[in-house]
Amino acid sequence: MKRYEVLADEIASMIDGQLLLPGDKLPSVRQQQARRSISPSTVFQAYYLLEARGLIVSRPRSGYYVSAQATTLAPEPASSRPAEVRTDVDISDLVFEVLGACGARDIVPLGSAFPSPELYPMDRLARAVSASMRRFDPWSAVTDLSLGNAELRRQIALRYQLDGVHVSSDEIVITNGALEALNLCLQAVTRPGDTVLIESPSFYACLQALERLELKAVEIATSPRDGVDLEALAALLERHQPKACWLMTSFQNPLGSLMPLEKKRALVDLLARHEVPLIEDDVYGELYFGKQRPGLAKSADGRGLVMHCSSFSKTLAPGFRLGWVVAGRFARQVERLKLTTSLSAPVPLQMALADYLAQGGYERHLRQLRLTLAAQQRCMLQAISEHFPPGTRVSRPQGGYFVWLELPDGCNALALHRSALQEGISIAPGPIFSATRVFGHCIRLNYGHPWSAQVAAAITTLGRLVSQQLLAEAN
Amino acid sequence: MKRYEVLADEIASMIDGQLLLPGDKLPSVRQQQARRSISPSTVFQAYYLLEARGLIVSRPRSGYYVSAQATTLAPEPASSRPAEVRTDVDISDLVFEVLGACGARDIVPLGSAFPSPELYPMDRLARAVSASMRRFDPWSAVTDLSLGNAELRRQIALRYQLDGVHVSSDEIVITNGALEALNLCLQAVTRPGDTVLIESPSFYACLQALERLELKAVEIATSPRDGVDLEALAALLERHQPKACWLMTSFQNPLGSLMPLEKKRALVDLLARHEVPLIEDDVYGELYFGKQRPGLAKSADGRGLVMHCSSFSKTLAPGFRLGWVVAGRFARQVERLKLTTSLSAPVPLQMALADYLAQGGYERHLRQLRLTLAAQQRCMLQAISEHFPPGTRVSRPQGGYFVWLELPDGCNALALHRSALQEGISIAPGPIFSATRVFGHCIRLNYGHPWSAQVAAAITTLGRLVSQQLLAEAN
Repeated sequence: MKRYEVLADEIASMIDGQLLLPGDKLPSVRQQQARRSISPSTVFQAYYLLEARGLIVSRPRSGYYVSAQATTLAPEPASSRPAEVRTDVDISDLVFEVLGACGARDIVPLGSAFPSPELYPMDRLARAVSASMRRFDPWSAVTDLSLGNAELRRQIALRYQLDGVHVSSDEIVITNGALEALNLCLQAVTRPGDTVLIESPSFYACLQALERLELKAVEIATSPRDGVDLEALAALLERHQPKACWLMTSFQNPLGSLMPLEKKRALVDLLARHEVPLIEDDVYGELYFGKQRPGLAKSADGRGLVMHCSSFSKTLAPGFRLGWVVAGRFARQVERLKLTTSLSAPVPLQMALADYLAQGGYERHLRQLRLTLAAQQRCMLQAISEHFPPGTRVSRPQGGYFVWLELPDGCNALALHRSALQEGISIAPGPIFSATRVFGHCIRLNYGHPWSAQVAAAITTLGRLVSQQLLAEAN
Repeated sequence: MKRYEVLADEIASMIDGQLLLPGDKLPSVRQQQARRSISPSTVFQAYYLLEARGLIVSRPRSGYYVSAQATTLAPEPASSRPAEVRTDVDISDLVFEVLGACGARDIVPLGSAFPSPELYPMDRLARAVSASMRRFDPWSAVTDLSLGNAELRRQIALRYQLDGVHVSSDEIVITNGALEALNLCLQAVTRPGDTVLIESPSFYACLQALERLELKAVEIATSPRDGVDLEALAALLERHQPKACWLMTSFQNPLGSLMPLEKKRALVDLLARHEVPLIEDDVYGELYFGKQRPGLAKSADGRGLVMHCSSFSKTLAPGFRLGWVVAGRFARQVERLKLTTSLSAPVPLQMALADYLAQGGYERHLRQLRLTLAAQQRCMLQAISEHFPPGTRVSRPQGGYFVWLELPDGCNALALHRSALQEGISIAPGPIFSATRVFGHCIRLNYGHPWSAQVAAAITTLGRLVSQQLLAEAN
């Protein structure tokens, strides 16, 4: 744990223990620095972290204060402790049943995997697409086949550069969304029957990919705060000879956990010692609430074993289905799999996004998107803490648009899913996030939609339904 | 064989045997009708067929005449006779080596898999995309996920209706090009190690799909004129218990063969008796030179065993990567595979094509495209017949944009591929079209590019290179 994390945790527990109360002013940076002999930047980082967790707020020209809701927020869930089983995956039926029920437009989409499409610059994208179609060189439909549009790959490589990761545009393969990228990576390094290490809970599309490719899953203990437990991972690496490890290293879906950069580096080292490829699913990495983009495991990849997958579906252009992978030593294999699976991603949309990125509006759009999501998270955490019964635990992600709730003992997430649907609300029940169908008392909620009376009422209703379950259980 | 085919073959052999000479007038429809007691429409169909094969030409208000080049055209290749082996497929390296060498823009693209992009209505498509982006309802990015855009599926279902095939739009799954559709169909009905029956020669992407999914191939004898030999197929069905049969029933790539509708019906019946699903790859079906669209095997599918795959990549919008499948009883499985593989095809492009189709310019565009391709085929057949050495055989497809050449004994297609590249010409050498790497003396040429002095010179050069091979062989 880093110094600023130690400091942040110390302050957080003082708030939890009510030694610090809402409205209390925190020591100034100068005071902390003097008192603890630490650098100002360490103090700042700790305060930023606490701010991102909703525990403190900054008042301009005055300093940091314990936030009004700090002590009333529900506590965070503990790390998962999955059973160590090597298991077939058979989850798709349940996933499709749950998702199929959630598709209608008039449902409050708390179970959705997508943020509100209204958060994206559709007008600007429309202009970019129109302009690219006017310039569309029909021959590019042939020449852009292989790795994808050269200019788009160059723009993506530039963004890696900004994040301190050196990537050649020749290593980038453009795909039909990150989901295709992730599937191709899995195929590149596994064969049916092989074992893959995944988080617990893990994104259901990851489970479905394993199921489709007939792979065995072993789940790793995962903390809602900082991701997979490296000790647990080390033990599993020894015992299971996995062929790949698929992790969401930043703002994991569904937990929202963020592995600190140090931990990501240790992860890459550990996997490299076992020659196990890491499939790094980083589709949420740009949606951070802190001061800078979280580092990538890929940045520590000296051996070419990390396949870094991402997309524009959550950050810029939902529905365009444009993703990519930087596949390290597996780049040529992934490229070939892409060519034989679906040939290439659509050319006009690749050109349009390349233009949009070159014009420079992306960063401004992202800044606004992050602020919006952070504000919506605060509203949702506060509402959950108010309306869900005691014993409810909720994660406090520093990015993305999901929170993970552990409901009190006796609650049944699948039953809640069904009764919520009858009230016109979708949720994502815990069992769809596990090969072993645990998390029966957990749910994932989406705060990627504008906070509204309707959403607020939905949270109130969910809280009531959970309380009713507990009451029925007690009788 | 149908009556009009019998008549056409009879006339064709009279031309081949020089009983009928270039410039000779054929009997009028009325005369034929009286002489043979057949209906006028039978005579017309026979004449249309001969016209499509380049053997006769019509002169307005005068009648039909033996065409100038009729007797000089090289003869057609015979049916293939593949060895009956159940084989692993290991062809991708060769395919990528060959295709990789053909990508440069300054190469005469006779080896290309694509027609000239200049044949497509890029301006109209650009307007359709621009208009659809202006109306883009961001929510459709979420609601169009599953089967694809509802309006596009409705437009596709309407086109089936016009062709006399009843298809509900709920059976249609929109995919990233036909290639993804074909791959999903294969996955839906096979497991690694299963046997799939394919044509001989067969499209290399089909071979690559089998290789990727670790399937065994058994090749069926295939005629350049009317497709697979049903007797041979029946024997293979008995002996190999295949899990699927993947065929291009109209204008097969690379042969250009067209199964008559009667034969397609017999094919569907035969496969149904063995409960073997047919994957019908029909991406060229709209590019016919005759009077009407060839029938579909799907039209005879009473059991839901035919998965009909097609796309807009060859007919309307190269680079958009929009295809689809009507998957019969496997529709839900294919839909789920699509969702877990790449989620969905891009929404804005689906909307744009739906609009374009609704506006009604598609049929006019297709008519022009068919005329252009037919004219280009005549030029290429004539040039091949003039410049290739005696002993060369060439197919005379009634649609599509490929001809298949059987070069004289002693020729080596892979060597020709390499020497042609040095002259700035690409070709598709025969061995990439076979799991057993036969067709070492065959090549596929693309006539989908405007006939030009450059293309004409390329054919002359190829003819010279083939003659040189023969000379070297003789010495």
